[in-house]
Amino acid sequence: MKLNCDMGEAFGAWTMGLDEQIMPFVDQANIACGFHASDPLTMSKTVALAAKHGVTIGAHPAYPDLVGFGRRNMDVAPAELKALIQYQIGALQGICATHGTHVTYVKPHGALYNTMMSNFAVLETVMQAVSELDSSLVLMVMAVPEAEEVKALAQKYQLTLWFEAFSDRLYTDEGRLTPRKQSNAVHSSFERIEQQVLELSNTGKLTTESGASLEVHADTICVHGDGAHAVEAVKRIRAVVNGSNAS
Amino acid sequence: MKLNCDMGEAFGAWTMGLDEQIMPFVDQANIACGFHASDPLTMSKTVALAAKHGVTIGAHPAYPDLVGFGRRNMDVAPAELKALIQYQIGALQGICATHGTHVTYVKPHGALYNTMMSNFAVLETVMQAVSELDSSLVLMVMAVPEAEEVKALAQKYQLTLWFEAFSDRLYTDEGRLTPRKQSNAVHSSFERIEQQVLELSNTGKLTTESGASLEVHADTICVHGDGAHAVEAVKRIRAVVNGSNAS
Amino acid sequence: MKLNCDMGEAFGAWTMGLDEQIMPFVDQANIACGFHASDPLTMSKTVALAAKHGVTIGAHPAYPDLVGFGRRNMDVAPAELKALIQYQIGALQGICATHGTHVTYVKPHGALYNTMMSNFAVLETVMQAVSELDSSLVLMVMAVPEAEEVKALAQKYQLTLWFEAFSDRLYTDEGRLTPRKQSNAVHSSFERIEQQVLELSNTGKLTTESGASLEVHADTICVHGDGAHAVEAVKRIRAVVNGSNAS
Amino acid sequence: MKLNCDMGEAFGAWTMGLDEQIMPFVDQANIACGFHASDPLTMSKTVALAAKHGVTIGAHPAYPDLVGFGRRNMDVAPAELKALIQYQIGALQGICATHGTHVTYVKPHGALYNTMMSNFAVLETVMQAVSELDSSLVLMVMAVPEAEEVKALAQKYQLTLWFEAFSDRLYTDEGRLTPRKQSNAVHSSFERIEQQVLELSNTGKLTTESGASLEVHADTICVHGDGAHAVEAVKRIRAVVNGSNAS
Repeated sequence: MKLNCDMGEAFGAWTMGLDEQIMPFVDQANIACGFHASDPLTMSKTVALAAKHGVTIGAHPAYPDLVGFGRRNMDVAPAELKALIQYQIGALQGICATHGTHVTYVKPHGALYNTMMSNFAVLETVMQAVSELDSSLVLMVMAVPEAEEVKALAQKYQLTLWFEAFSDRLYTDEGRLTPRKQSNAVHSSFERIEQQVLELSNTGKLTTESGASLEVHADTICVHGDGAHAVEAVKRIRAVVNGSNAS
Repeated sequence: MKLNCDMGEAFGAWTMGLDEQIMPFVDQANIACGFHASDPLTMSKTVALAAKHGVTIGAHPAYPDLVGFGRRNMDVAPAELKALIQYQIGALQGICATHGTHVTYVKPHGALYNTMMSNFAVLETVMQAVSELDSSLVLMVMAVPEAEEVKALAQKYQLTLWFEAFSDRLYTDEGRLTPRKQSNAVHSSFERIEQQVLELSNTGKLTTESGASLEVHADTICVHGDGAHAVEAVKRIRAVVNGSNAS
Repeated sequence: MKLNCDMGEAFGAWTMGLDEQIMPFVDQANIACGFHASDPLTMSKTVALAAKHGVTIGAHPAYPDLVGFGRRNMDVAPAELKALIQYQIGALQGICATHGTHVTYVKPHGALYNTMMSNFAVLETVMQAVSELDSSLVLMVMAVPEAEEVKALAQKYQLTLWFEAFSDRLYTDEGRLTPRKQSNAVHSSFERIEQQVLELSNTGKLTTESGASLEVHADTICVHGDGAHAVEAVKRIRAVVNGSNAS
Repeated sequence: MKLNCDMGEAFGAWTMGLDEQIMPFVDQANIACGFHASDPLTMSKTVALAAKHGVTIGAHPAYPDLVGFGRRNMDVAPAELKALIQYQIGALQGICATHGTHVTYVKPHGALYNTMMSNFAVLETVMQAVSELDSSLVLMVMAVPEAEEVKALAQKYQLTLWFEAFSDRLYTDEGRLTPRKQSNAVHSSFERIEQQVLELSNTGKLTTESGASLEVHADTICVHGDGAHAVEAVKRIRAVVNGSNAS
């Protein structure tokens, strides 16, 4: 089991996230590419930081919406969506080349991620975009109940998938994230987070909102790099995952 | 002698240039990368058009200034300048990869081009940017009187240079372009343009504003892709260059 | 009956529309405010042109999407939507003040216009935005079959409405525009356009796709300022409307 | 003596400054207008906060350079500079109108401020911009040794000036700020800041780097709203100024 985290989401004079403190504890950095966050210099610094810690680099492309942080849906036509994903991956590849490293995977950001996981026509456009650029790039997607359907689609485009689960989100019995407006949607205690990570790592399951046990086959767990307790949470999750991986 | 032309300078719903009509007559396309013009979809279409006509592709990076079309100087710090050049080249490389082609050279745009040709500290930063990314990329620069100094700098960064001259601009005796505010700064007749191209191609010289003969060793001539007479001018220049190249 | 037209949709070095040729023939200019098109200098020039011809000035606010020309829907939260509409109107008011003129009305652009006409929750947010800023500003909306519902909403916010109809679009029997993908969605002949304008002006009706007669109570007719036949079309529409207004 | 502070410099999801904590202690808020920082919703919240505390509102226009935070010089032509200043002021006026308040003054930001204080041709363009929009708007400028020249220029455009001095910057004997690269350019102790504010308030003088006494006639003192000690510093400066104003 790996840990992935969004990184490099500063923009110009504005900071975001605790990249320097979090980077040593994760395996995979989803690096913003300038469309929802980041700028060329921030990308260069973030790639250097990831390379220093031997962290695998992923492109984190998004809709072109800096002021909305890529969090709101935009009706982007397929041809344009493909091109803007390819542009962002290419830009990060360019920055990586200057640091003697490379992009290993792609994880779409925010609204683009949510849209592609609920609308497989968009997911297919994303897969085409990645595959046309370099089919050796891995696509990171959410571990959803329709995983087999997602895998079949990926196979069509010769893409490898990495499935991710969330450490701190409550799942419904149907394998969806409970909506954020629900008060218990985000686990607030370290213990609950640790429990979910332990279950995911050891058994490929997690406990849903009803208390049921749900199969979630994940390759990587998404952790968060900002907020008051982010560093403590990541350290604890790292410890749990290290224990599971070792056993 | 080659012909190069700025291409792909549309932006979203706005068009610019006669790319489809001009592309068949040039050898090298300087393709905008989204910072002074273009967007990912326009870049993809422009790369496809260049590939279709077997035109060599160059990245045309610029200062981040869409509303100013990259034409006005900005005090960008060296580390940021390097990163934004690398970002733009990488983005175009990504788009090229999806069309089975690649970026061969880099020609900075507008104010960045002018600044680097008059301030060699900026030129050196540009060279570092390109060299760090891929020292097999060629840098296209203006054929200036200080060419030896430029070559020495390029050698330091293992870069090949292509020097360019202008088909329709009047030169001073010192080898500079006469300022655009001067009424005769731009040649308005096809004959004058043809004469300058013929001289450059056959003798490595051109006739200055005083009527003197000036040595200008150029590998490529810059032509323009917009304006009422652009297509006619490019066809004529192509014919002159073909004649010279054949003889 | 008045004629309104989108104006000032250039952006930096890119041009759009035949503003100088069209302005003398319209009554109301919907002036872009920098979010889907235009920039401060273009706005200033467009306001000057409108003022010179005594044309009434409207703000033409849009979603923040230059590369998409404000034509694609964005999930913008109500508080943000209100603020960005107010920002754009205010900016145009500032530019108008420097030319001794003022903004009389507001007509949302593109996707925002379409969304508000099909989702009255968004329409209400737009009304709040305008009313909070200055309830003497008129809101221009589409003359839809639910006009009474729209009027009731406007009354709640003390807003005056101007309803607009389209000169060159085919309507369904239900009073909707036929979708653009339908081959006859846009009238291609001057005669058909003139007929629709004449009907609208004289009888408050138009002929639908089935040949039925539909009541459309419009205060203003939207004409287009770009395209090969725009100037000719506007002159003809102007002549028809002048005839009707005089009779 | 008044206190002014830059406010509303967040952008979308990114925060900056301690506006809520600082606002109660200042008299004048220089509110970012979306070109170097801020967005319409942030502007609306910032105006509401200023209004709540009875703080006078100033527009803080800048070069169009979000990624550079308006801190680097751009060669913007006079006509465009005028229009972009007017656009930004107008936008803030629009937002203010929705909160029942208004813009009282204009203080250019960052590189634009520095450029206009060192190049009076740019200062004159700024004055034209403000005066054309509304000559009852006050222009806030730096209290420089050439104050008489600045006043004469302002008189030409019927503008009132407010001169500002800095609480925490070391001045040269010639009345300039010592460059930031100089280690003592920014006062790091509360005591030194308080001393400078006390001198400015009581005597219209301050102590320069050589220990000399320099006349600086200021109407307002600029304080900072971000950084670890900002709140403590502002409270102390407020106390000093209150004491001086009362005596």
